[in-house]
Amino acid sequence: MKPLLPDPQRSATHTTLEGTDHTGQTIAIPVIHERPLTLFLNDQEIVTHMTIGDFPEYLALGYLLNQNILKPDDEVSAIDVQMDIDTVVVRTPQPTPFEAKRKTLTSGCAQGTVFGDLMELIEGIALPEDAILKTSWLFKLTHLINTTPSLYLKTGAIHGCVLCAQDQILAYMEDVGRHNAVDKIAGYMHQRQIPPHDKIFYTTGRLTSEMVIKTVKMGIPILISRSGFTAWGVTLARQSGLTLIGRARGQRFMVLAGGHRIVCDTP
Amino acid sequence: MKPLLPDPQRSATHTTLEGTDHTGQTIAIPVIHERPLTLFLNDQEIVTHMTIGDFPEYLALGYLLNQNILKPDDEVSAIDVQMDIDTVVVRTPQPTPFEAKRKTLTSGCAQGTVFGDLMELIEGIALPEDAILKTSWLFKLTHLINTTPSLYLKTGAIHGCVLCAQDQILAYMEDVGRHNAVDKIAGYMHQRQIPPHDKIFYTTGRLTSEMVIKTVKMGIPILISRSGFTAWGVTLARQSGLTLIGRARGQRFMVLAGGHRIVCDTP
Repeated sequence: MKPLLPDPQRSATHTTLEGTDHTGQTIAIPVIHERPLTLFLNDQEIVTHMTIGDFPEYLALGYLLNQNILKPDDEVSAIDVQMDIDTVVVRTPQPTPFEAKRKTLTSGCAQGTVFGDLMELIEGIALPEDAILKTSWLFKLTHLINTTPSLYLKTGAIHGCVLCAQDQILAYMEDVGRHNAVDKIAGYMHQRQIPPHDKIFYTTGRLTSEMVIKTVKMGIPILISRSGFTAWGVTLARQSGLTLIGRARGQRFMVLAGGHRIVCDTP
Repeated sequence: MKPLLPDPQRSATHTTLEGTDHTGQTIAIPVIHERPLTLFLNDQEIVTHMTIGDFPEYLALGYLLNQNILKPDDEVSAIDVQMDIDTVVVRTPQPTPFEAKRKTLTSGCAQGTVFGDLMELIEGIALPEDAILKTSWLFKLTHLINTTPSLYLKTGAIHGCVLCAQDQILAYMEDVGRHNAVDKIAGYMHQRQIPPHDKIFYTTGRLTSEMVIKTVKMGIPILISRSGFTAWGVTLARQSGLTLIGRARGQRFMVLAGGHRIVCDTP
């Protein structure tokens, strides 16, 4: 399968803006777009994302799956994107249980509820114990990711998430919010029916509770970041049996959970 | 006024966790806490923040002000923090218009609505034209901020926001989410009745639409970041007359909006 890589030439995701630098000289720099995209599930407004706007279908589907609003087996009849009015509508043949429940809410934002549900959900997930990460794969992946042409290299101010198999990139998504990049990967995996049990997930962002929860929810046993950890992210990773590797730069890294999956095959 | 600075010795904000490094050696590293804090306005649940947990009163108040749920003149009768059950309750003598409006919502998360309101709100704000930023202040501030003992230097994985006057730090807040750090500054300014018109705001995070909107909402005319821009952040800054400076590192920076406030007094 051909890997899905960033397309920094794609003009819809960024623009060139003029300004001045510290010497007073006029400069023109590439700057990432950030646009609102409102997600509907059938006739219900769910959330407004701030996104670079590529792959709205994957973002919509992945968000609904990762938030447990849609189940992996739920049938999706259509995903209608209308970028001119900044909307994406995910349609199902029947109203979902989430919609029925939502109709009865009279106050409060759903964030707290969804959050509680997610915590419950990942308690039941068992990540595969036989998945491994060779240190040679890790070093090759971080090098590959850092040198692949990307919006990050072109414009900065963006996060990346990468789905990997052994030492290869399968899909590399970017977005202004790292949660969007994860959700786009989740939507992509669901559409392409990519099994998660032997995959490796890389993020440029920090290893927070949200990132750990989404990775476990996706069924991926190994999570790597070039950034650092939060304590609750580590706690959740240990509870879930997730391998959690942070501060992965060059040939260095730190493992705070699930170290048994790491196979050292480098000097 | 004594500046409010980070307290990296404050043990409630971080912990030490054991793991292994790339050589297989056992390591113990300081890791930031990230805990849920649910905000109530009187009897209405508003949102659950993920936060390091310091200054919950400022966070709660600043969030409500920046989201336009409370107006600056609204009377607050109490802010009750109960960290053991992760809640903070902001109380007003009378129910607020927001609560009345919220009770009538039957579907959808409030995010889209609040977002629309914020956009409308900043359209009416005129930032003072006579505020200035000397380049000598900018270089001194970035040096001061980078060398002040902080959770960022101790644990990483955290954002900082700093309220400054000329070349001095007034308040330096940190949090796992940069929006929380901004909101804590807003709450602090409101409680201390600090006027915004001659202040300078520094953030470690990217200059997104959210960051620009919050800064304009707070009435601060100058926003500086060590990170990059998004296109919509720049557009909003230009519309609002905000001075927007990005990629400020060492003696370098880029200005993409409001360059007229910058006074070059360095070689």
